[in-house]
Amino acid sequence: MTEKNILPPLTQIPAHLQTIADYEIEAEKHLSSMVWDYLQGGSMDEVSVRDNLQQFQDIQLLPRMLKDLTHGGTEIEILGQKFPHPIFLAPIGHQQQFHPEAEAASALAAEVMGSNMILSTFSNTDMRALKQDNPLKWFQLYWQGDREKSLALVKMAEAHHYTALVITVDSPHTGIRDRERHAFFHLPEGMQHPHTPTHIPLPELKEGDHPVFHGLMKIAPTWDDIAWIVQQTHLPVILKGIVHPQDAQLAMQHGVKGLIISNHGGRVLDTCISPLLALQLIKKVVPVDFPLLYDGGIRRGSDIFKAIALGASAVLIGRPYIYGLATAGALGVAHVIKILKEEFEITMALMGTATVTDIQPECLFSGIE
Amino acid sequence: MTEKNILPPLTQIPAHLQTIADYEIEAEKHLSSMVWDYLQGGSMDEVSVRDNLQQFQDIQLLPRMLKDLTHGGTEIEILGQKFPHPIFLAPIGHQQQFHPEAEAASALAAEVMGSNMILSTFSNTDMRALKQDNPLKWFQLYWQGDREKSLALVKMAEAHHYTALVITVDSPHTGIRDRERHAFFHLPEGMQHPHTPTHIPLPELKEGDHPVFHGLMKIAPTWDDIAWIVQQTHLPVILKGIVHPQDAQLAMQHGVKGLIISNHGGRVLDTCISPLLALQLIKKVVPVDFPLLYDGGIRRGSDIFKAIALGASAVLIGRPYIYGLATAGALGVAHVIKILKEEFEITMALMGTATVTDIQPECLFSGIE
Amino acid sequence: MTEKNILPPLTQIPAHLQTIADYEIEAEKHLSSMVWDYLQGGSMDEVSVRDNLQQFQDIQLLPRMLKDLTHGGTEIEILGQKFPHPIFLAPIGHQQQFHPEAEAASALAAEVMGSNMILSTFSNTDMRALKQDNPLKWFQLYWQGDREKSLALVKMAEAHHYTALVITVDSPHTGIRDRERHAFFHLPEGMQHPHTPTHIPLPELKEGDHPVFHGLMKIAPTWDDIAWIVQQTHLPVILKGIVHPQDAQLAMQHGVKGLIISNHGGRVLDTCISPLLALQLIKKVVPVDFPLLYDGGIRRGSDIFKAIALGASAVLIGRPYIYGLATAGALGVAHVIKILKEEFEITMALMGTATVTDIQPECLFSGIE
Amino acid sequence: MTEKNILPPLTQIPAHLQTIADYEIEAEKHLSSMVWDYLQGGSMDEVSVRDNLQQFQDIQLLPRMLKDLTHGGTEIEILGQKFPHPIFLAPIGHQQQFHPEAEAASALAAEVMGSNMILSTFSNTDMRALKQDNPLKWFQLYWQGDREKSLALVKMAEAHHYTALVITVDSPHTGIRDRERHAFFHLPEGMQHPHTPTHIPLPELKEGDHPVFHGLMKIAPTWDDIAWIVQQTHLPVILKGIVHPQDAQLAMQHGVKGLIISNHGGRVLDTCISPLLALQLIKKVVPVDFPLLYDGGIRRGSDIFKAIALGASAVLIGRPYIYGLATAGALGVAHVIKILKEEFEITMALMGTATVTDIQPECLFSGIE
Repeated sequence: MTEKNILPPLTQIPAHLQTIADYEIEAEKHLSSMVWDYLQGGSMDEVSVRDNLQQFQDIQLLPRMLKDLTHGGTEIEILGQKFPHPIFLAPIGHQQQFHPEAEAASALAAEVMGSNMILSTFSNTDMRALKQDNPLKWFQLYWQGDREKSLALVKMAEAHHYTALVITVDSPHTGIRDRERHAFFHLPEGMQHPHTPTHIPLPELKEGDHPVFHGLMKIAPTWDDIAWIVQQTHLPVILKGIVHPQDAQLAMQHGVKGLIISNHGGRVLDTCISPLLALQLIKKVVPVDFPLLYDGGIRRGSDIFKAIALGASAVLIGRPYIYGLATAGALGVAHVIKILKEEFEITMALMGTATVTDIQPECLFSGIE
Repeated sequence: MTEKNILPPLTQIPAHLQTIADYEIEAEKHLSSMVWDYLQGGSMDEVSVRDNLQQFQDIQLLPRMLKDLTHGGTEIEILGQKFPHPIFLAPIGHQQQFHPEAEAASALAAEVMGSNMILSTFSNTDMRALKQDNPLKWFQLYWQGDREKSLALVKMAEAHHYTALVITVDSPHTGIRDRERHAFFHLPEGMQHPHTPTHIPLPELKEGDHPVFHGLMKIAPTWDDIAWIVQQTHLPVILKGIVHPQDAQLAMQHGVKGLIISNHGGRVLDTCISPLLALQLIKKVVPVDFPLLYDGGIRRGSDIFKAIALGASAVLIGRPYIYGLATAGALGVAHVIKILKEEFEITMALMGTATVTDIQPECLFSGIE
Repeated sequence: MTEKNILPPLTQIPAHLQTIADYEIEAEKHLSSMVWDYLQGGSMDEVSVRDNLQQFQDIQLLPRMLKDLTHGGTEIEILGQKFPHPIFLAPIGHQQQFHPEAEAASALAAEVMGSNMILSTFSNTDMRALKQDNPLKWFQLYWQGDREKSLALVKMAEAHHYTALVITVDSPHTGIRDRERHAFFHLPEGMQHPHTPTHIPLPELKEGDHPVFHGLMKIAPTWDDIAWIVQQTHLPVILKGIVHPQDAQLAMQHGVKGLIISNHGGRVLDTCISPLLALQLIKKVVPVDFPLLYDGGIRRGSDIFKAIALGASAVLIGRPYIYGLATAGALGVAHVIKILKEEFEITMALMGTATVTDIQPECLFSGIE
Repeated sequence: MTEKNILPPLTQIPAHLQTIADYEIEAEKHLSSMVWDYLQGGSMDEVSVRDNLQQFQDIQLLPRMLKDLTHGGTEIEILGQKFPHPIFLAPIGHQQQFHPEAEAASALAAEVMGSNMILSTFSNTDMRALKQDNPLKWFQLYWQGDREKSLALVKMAEAHHYTALVITVDSPHTGIRDRERHAFFHLPEGMQHPHTPTHIPLPELKEGDHPVFHGLMKIAPTWDDIAWIVQQTHLPVILKGIVHPQDAQLAMQHGVKGLIISNHGGRVLDTCISPLLALQLIKKVVPVDFPLLYDGGIRRGSDIFKAIALGASAVLIGRPYIYGLATAGALGVAHVIKILKEEFEITMALMGTATVTDIQPECLFSGIE
C-alpha cells in the first residue's frame, strides 16, 4: 500500500464544490485515512449512520402553490433568544485533527454566517477565545466525573457569555466503533484540550467487579446531577442525546429547558432509534413550545425542512461542517452553512412556507395521511 | 477524457428501437454530455426522478378475461374536446438543444399521431408556426413577472387557436439540480425564444433582504393572479404542478377547469410527493368529471393504463418524446408516440377493458383490497 | 462477438446437477441465444418474471415437530382423478426448439415420474402419439378463431383419452416481450405443428379500425364460447390464466370445473398480479373443494408446499422442465421432476405434514398472524 | 484452479481480530473450502441464513439515559441454575473438522469464560472428558432411532454431571444444503464419534414405500418418546427447534422444562420462520418464567440484548465460536465469547439497563409502538 497523499487545506473555494456531498468527497483528500475513518465511522455495523441519512429520503414533501411569500424569512426564536436561521453547529471535539485552526475556524464561520456555535468540552480552542459579544454560542458539557469539576466549566461558560448549556447524556461509555478500531485510531501525541483531560480517571476495580458497571458507570452523571447543575447556573440547561419520551418527561421535571434529539451521529449505540422517529415520539409528550433541536444526518436544505416539519425548533449539523473545515478552514465551514441555508430557503419557497413557523406536519405526506 | 463523439440525428428508424428504453439509450448518443445531463437530471439527489419510475412497477394489474372487446377504442374527451388517445406531449422548452427543428418537429409528430401538444412558453419555435386548424394544441404559460406581459401571451394563444391554457405553478424558483450544476449547464449563446426572455428581471434587493423571499417570490404569481387570468380569457385554464388536495379545491374556487398532477419530472423539489399518490389524494376531493391529467415517469403503455385507473383523464409524456426528438426529429417523436399507443392498446386488450372509461380503480389489485 | 458454442444434449446426468438452479445454468449451454431469450424472457420489463420467484422467498414456513408421519405420502385427487403427486407439466409449445424429441420426450418423462402432462395446442408432437392408456395427460386448447376448429381439437383429445381440457384465456394478444424482440426471435423455418397454424388468420381491417380491438379481439373467445365448449364435451373444462375473483365466479357459472391460477410465467402482461396473491383472492370465493391449480415461479419443493398451503390443489412447472429437456431430453425432464418431488417430500417431513391435505394456511406464518 | 493454502491455527490473537466479523474472515483462511462451505452454508437458497442476520438490524433500540447503573451485572438464573452471563455455546458436532482439539477446546474456553457448553451428540470429544465439577454443561441428544439407545446416552450424561438435557427436534431429515452438496461434502474418513454412529440404520423399504415417510420418519422421535424420556431422567428436558406456539404448549404438557427457539442456523428448512418472530409468538403462550433460549444469527452484543428484550432467557452462539475455534482453538473461542460479552455489557450500559432482568420489550422501539 502506498502512503496517501494528503492535500493541504484550500484557501479559496473551487467552483465544483456545490453541495455537501461535494464537500464530503473533497474533505477526504485533506485528511489522513485514520482521521477520515474517525470522522466517517460510527458504532459497530454503522446501521444508524446509514439510517440517519436514509430516513430523510423516505419522507415525501407535499408543497402548496401560489401563496404570497414576499414577507418570508428564516428567523427563529428559542428560549427568548433570536437566531437568523435554524442551522446550528453541533459540538464536535478535537477539531485540530481536521484543520490547524480547529474550533476557532468553525466559530469564526458560524459568527459570519449567523449560525449558533455549540462548543465542545473537548475543544482544542479555549472557550475564552470566542468573540465575547456574539450571543450565538452555547457550551457543551461532558460530565467531568464529579460535580465540582463539571461546575467549574459551567461557571467559565457563564463568565464568557455563552448563552446556554448543553449536557451530552447519551455516551456514558464510548461507542464500539469498528472502523476506528480497525484503523487503530488515536489522538495526536500532545494534543491540547484546555478544558478537560482526554480520559477522566476511573475508580479502582475490586476483584469480581465488572469494568463497565463498577468502572465507567461510577463516574457517569445521573438525574440527580442534572438537577444539581440546573440549580447552580442561570444558563438554560439543554440535554443532548435524549430519545425516549419518558426521559423527555423526566428532563422537564428536573428543570431542563430543551432537548437535542440525537443518536450521536450513529457513533455510540448502533441501531439506536432513528432520531426523526424519536423526535416524533417526544414531540407528543412535551408542551408545544418546548424547544426540541434535531441532530443527525442533515445533508440538504430539504432535510432541515423535514426535521422542522416533524417538530424541531432548529437543527444541528456535524460532519457537514467538518467537511468544510477540512477542505478550507473557516472559509469552507462558512460555505457549507451558506449552501444549506440557500437550499433551505429555496425549499421553503417551493413548499409555499413563508416563515419557519409555517413549517408544520401538514407539509409532509405523512402529516395528512 | 476524450471528447464525446455526438452522432447526427437519424433519418430513419433502425429496427432495434422498440421501446422507450431503447430510445433513451439511443438519444444519449445524439446529445452532448451537458445537454444529456440537463435532460436526464433532476433536483438534488434525484430521489423523485427515480421514484416517478419506480411507483409504476409497484402497482399490480388485475385483468379480466373473455370479455367482448370488439367495440373497443382509445378515444377520450376532456372539457368537451375529443382526443383520439390520452397521450399528450408535455410542455418542454428549449427544444433546439435536442434537434435543430425543435418544437416544430415535436408538433408535427403530435399532429400526425393525434397527440395533444402542449407548447411551452420557453419554446424556440414561435407559437404562430403551429398548424392553425389542428385543435390538438394547448399553450403553456410561465408567469411573465406581471399580469400584462402574461396576458399578452394568452391573447396570442387565443388568436392562434390554442384550445386551452396550461399555467405551470410549481416552480416559482428553479430546482437545485446537482447534475446540471456539476456540468455547468448553460443554454447556447444566442438561442432564440420568441415569447419570453430567458430570465424575468428581478426586483432590486435592499440590504438585509432575502434574495429568495424578496426577490424571485415578488415576481411569482398568486391565486389572485390566476383568478384574474381566468377572467381575461375564454380559454379553459388548467394548472400544472398542483399536488395538494387543498390546492385542488382552491383551484376550483378560482375558476380553474382542470389540473395536471405533476412533480415536474422530479426537476424542482426533490422528494416531492410522487404524482401517482397526489393523483389519488386529489381524485377524492374533486367532482368525478373534473379533468385531472397525469405527468411523470410514463415509460410504458401499462403506465398510462395505471395512471388512468387511478383517476387520470389523460397523461403527459416528457423525456420519452425528447428521446425520440434527439434520435430522429419528428420521425422519432412520432415513433415514440406510436410505441406507447400500441403498448397502451395491447394493455387495454389484455386487461379486458374496451374503452378508456372502462379503466377503473378495480383494474388494479390496490382497488379491490 | 464470437458465435456461441451450443452443446448437444447430454445423454447422462452429471453429478453437479442437483437443483433447478443448476439445470438453469446448464440449459443455457445447450440453446442458442435466441431460443434462450425466448425461454427466459417475459413481458416488457420482466417485473412479473422476477416477482413470480421473489414472492416465495417472502413467505415464512411455520413447522410442527415430533408428529408421527409414518403413514405419509404425496398422493392427491382432482375431479375424481388420482395423481401420485401434485407436480404437473405446464403446457409449453414449440418444444422442438429445446430438444429434437420435443413434447414426446417431456411426455415420456412425465409418464415415468407419474406427472400429469398438459399438452399444448402448439405442440410439435402429435397428441395422438402420447401413450393411450396413461390417464395422466390433459390437453391445452388455444382458441382457434372459431368454434368448429376449436371443437375439432377437443374431440381429438377426447378420442385419445386425454382426461381434461385446459383452455388458456389470458393471452388474446401476445405479450410485449422486449427480450424476445431484441433478439428478433422467430420460430425455425418449417417447424411442424400438427394441430394448429402458428398464426390464426385475422379479419380484414377497414380504414380507421384499431388493429387490436377490431383485429385480434374479433377472433378471441368470450364467455359464450366457453359455455358452448362445456356443452360439447364430456371432458371437464379448466381455465388457465384466471386471476380475478369475479372471473372465478363467472367461470363456475359457465360450467367450468377448475382453474389454473397463472400470469403465464410473466410472459403476457407485465406487473400482472402475482399468482400467489390471486390464488388467495380466488380461494375465498370458490367452494372448498373447487380445484385451483397454481402456475408460476416454482423452483423448489418448498414453493410447491407454499402454493398448496395457500389453496392450490396441484402446481404446474414450466421453465424448470424445459431446462431439463434442453439439458438431456426425457432424462433431464425426469430428473427435474424427481428433484422437485424429493424436495417437496422432505419439506413435508420437516413441516410435520404427513399428507397433502394436511398442508393448510396454518403451516405458514401468514396463516396465524 | 489452484489448491487453497490452508493456514494452521494461530497460537496467539492478532490485534486486528476485534469483532465476530473479523473472526469470520480469519477462520476461512484456516479451513478447506469443503469444510468452510459446510460451516457457512444453509438449506437451499439460504434465505433463512441471511434472514437470521438481517432481522437484528431491523430492530431499533430505545435507550434510557442518566440512570444509576453502579449495581449492574450480567448474571442470570435458569431452572434454578446460575450463570455468570447469558451467552451459551450451541451444540455443534464434528468439531474436529475445525480444530484438532475439537469440542475439548470449545469446552475449555467455555469453562474459562463462564459460558454454558451444550455438548452435541455428534461430538468428537467424549462427554466424559469434560471437567466434572463444572456445572455449566448441558448435553444435547439426537434421537438414536429407539428409546433404549437414546436413554443410554442420557444416563451417561447424568452420571457425568451434565445439568440439563437438550433434545433437538427440528431435523428428523437433514436439510437440503445446496452449498454443501455442490462441494460434495463428506466427513473425513475414520472420524471418531464416541457416542453415536454417523447414520442411524434405516428400516428396510418395501416396494412402493416413500423413502422419506416410510424410512427416516420411522426412526424419528414423537411426543410420546419425549414424554417417556422425561420420565426416565431427573435432568430437566429442553427441546431445541420448537418454533410453533402450539408445539410450545404441547411441550409443557409433556413435561418439558424449557425451549430453545431456533431454525437450526438456517441449515434445515429454508424460509422457516425467523427465530426472533417465533420467540415473540411463543413468549405469548408460556408462563412468564418459562425458560426460552434463543438461537440464530447472534453476531454482536446488541443482538443478545435484543433477543433478551423480546423474551429470551439466554442465547446460544454457533458459527461465531467455530470461527474462533478454527482460528486459534480454545484461545479463539474464549476471545469470541469475551468480545460478545463486552459488547453486551456496553450495550446494557448505553441502554440504561443495570441487570438482565431490566431488559424488557420497552427497551425496543417496537415495544412502545
